[in-house]
Amino acid sequence: MKKPTRLTVNEYATGIKGNNKLVLSKAITLVESSLKEDRELTIDLLNQLPTSKNTIRLGITGSPGVGKSTFIVALTNQLINEGKKVAILSIDPSSPESGGSIMGDKTRMESISNEPNVYIRPSPAGNELGGLNQSSREAMLLCEAAGYDVVIIETVGVGQSEIDIKMLCDQFLLLIQPASGDELQGMKKGIVELADLLIVNKADGDLTESAKKSKLQYESALSTLIGHLASKVLSCSSTENTGIKEILLQIYATQETELKNGNLLKNRNQQKVKWFNKTLRRIIFEEFITSNKTMRKLADIEKKLLNSDYDVHNALKEMLS
Amino acid sequence: MKKPTRLTVNEYATGIKGNNKLVLSKAITLVESSLKEDRELTIDLLNQLPTSKNTIRLGITGSPGVGKSTFIVALTNQLINEGKKVAILSIDPSSPESGGSIMGDKTRMESISNEPNVYIRPSPAGNELGGLNQSSREAMLLCEAAGYDVVIIETVGVGQSEIDIKMLCDQFLLLIQPASGDELQGMKKGIVELADLLIVNKADGDLTESAKKSKLQYESALSTLIGHLASKVLSCSSTENTGIKEILLQIYATQETELKNGNLLKNRNQQKVKWFNKTLRRIIFEEFITSNKTMRKLADIEKKLLNSDYDVHNALKEMLS
Repeated sequence: MKKPTRLTVNEYATGIKGNNKLVLSKAITLVESSLKEDRELTIDLLNQLPTSKNTIRLGITGSPGVGKSTFIVALTNQLINEGKKVAILSIDPSSPESGGSIMGDKTRMESISNEPNVYIRPSPAGNELGGLNQSSREAMLLCEAAGYDVVIIETVGVGQSEIDIKMLCDQFLLLIQPASGDELQGMKKGIVELADLLIVNKADGDLTESAKKSKLQYESALSTLIGHLASKVLSCSSTENTGIKEILLQIYATQETELKNGNLLKNRNQQKVKWFNKTLRRIIFEEFITSNKTMRKLADIEKKLLNSDYDVHNALKEMLS
Repeated sequence: MKKPTRLTVNEYATGIKGNNKLVLSKAITLVESSLKEDRELTIDLLNQLPTSKNTIRLGITGSPGVGKSTFIVALTNQLINEGKKVAILSIDPSSPESGGSIMGDKTRMESISNEPNVYIRPSPAGNELGGLNQSSREAMLLCEAAGYDVVIIETVGVGQSEIDIKMLCDQFLLLIQPASGDELQGMKKGIVELADLLIVNKADGDLTESAKKSKLQYESALSTLIGHLASKVLSCSSTENTGIKEILLQIYATQETELKNGNLLKNRNQQKVKWFNKTLRRIIFEEFITSNKTMRKLADIEKKLLNSDYDVHNALKEMLS
């Protein structure tokens, strides 16, 4: 991979504070780098940038086909109509090795991609953090420093990602399909209950009635499983733009409550500890692998573990020898 | 902490293969040690011991007060009546620093603790693995090598532990209270759907009707949320010993199906990769902390992250400098 050119810390900082999107993109490329000198530059850069407690960090997920991009476009349009600036960090799990530019996503969000108050950044998923990128938090901080009021972190609902996304966002939204009970089998285990807000999308046309029914079913199922005080369920049509405003009001209300009662800051501080621990461990691990030139050995060992009686203790002995 | 005395690898291996419980306990103490020389001894020991694909690895969890110990006693009695040998690894999250002997658990399981075919080992919870001990897998392998047919790993339902327990067990059982919908608020988010088998305990006396109703409610809620093919719900009374046999038949049936269709082995092999990765990262991290004498620094940094604007990048800089 060709090494990208770097700006100076001051050039990055000035560009970001002036909301220069090109510089912001270059800075995100910098924080995504695992090179040691880039990491040091990242630290210096973040130290020069302002932080804010008044931003809203939204995690949004849902299975492919549920209409995530359309929903994000509708929500973003509502936000910019109200004068807000919106940054969208879109994590693509299908191309962990790609450079970070995913045409599919860009096309689907085309209608908002040229809005001056919207910034869209697709990033490849990392290996360790489920559906998250290992630099998603740093990218989010850069966007906030550039003056974006709302940062949306979008992931596809794959296994671990919903648990990891809770490490980044203030509120976690799960999009679901309108469907009868029988059709809900594909739902990922354990995800529904982690959400702060469940949104039944596609409440339009032939699916209007089905969406209403689904909303009630989910409300009932959630109240049985985790009690009445748990997650809220709302429905909307992203294409007809109905219910979006109500969802946003709910998001604002939750954010205000959590900010006032102190839980927002408490949650963000706990997230810092978790992110620090994950990152510190990752860096130390990467340095071990790099300095011992054992990347290939690690892959071979994992293959052996998957396909034979070879057990963990043998693998550890081989790896640490 | 006083360094425990160690046996030779041969003494451990012979004792374990001869089902000497005292030696088994000493060996588990060995694998729980984070001393480098103990780790090497552990690897040598595990290499000398037989493995088996015909064991059943059960993860059991549930909130405090749900009757976990009573249920485990009832299930274990049923198992030993059928000629099985049962090892119980009980993880105590409340005393991460204690030596591993928890009187409460021992007392509650007193009626089976002297059975020749039962082995009970309480262990403190580790810091990293939610409710799990970082050596739980190795302890489980030692028990299997000692001839135990069923290994029960018991954790209290706290946050991350249910996700981690899936890394160890073939089947994950969640115990729940009989209760009306309104009373289920305390249920931990995201746990219910991870379980392979939901068990409504205390289906006796005044709670008989309530347990029946809860069973139906959970079945309905689960089928709405994750589809009809998902987790089963059964009920039992651990004190009156009703429903226990049916639960065991269900466990046997699932185990046989999974063994025959190859999923059991596939799952165990994938668990090995995950455990190896977690352990390798932990060891490398521990060696970094030890060799840099930064244990205290780490704790100070985490405290700063929790209580101020001090952010992750500052913390990384301080830690890696």
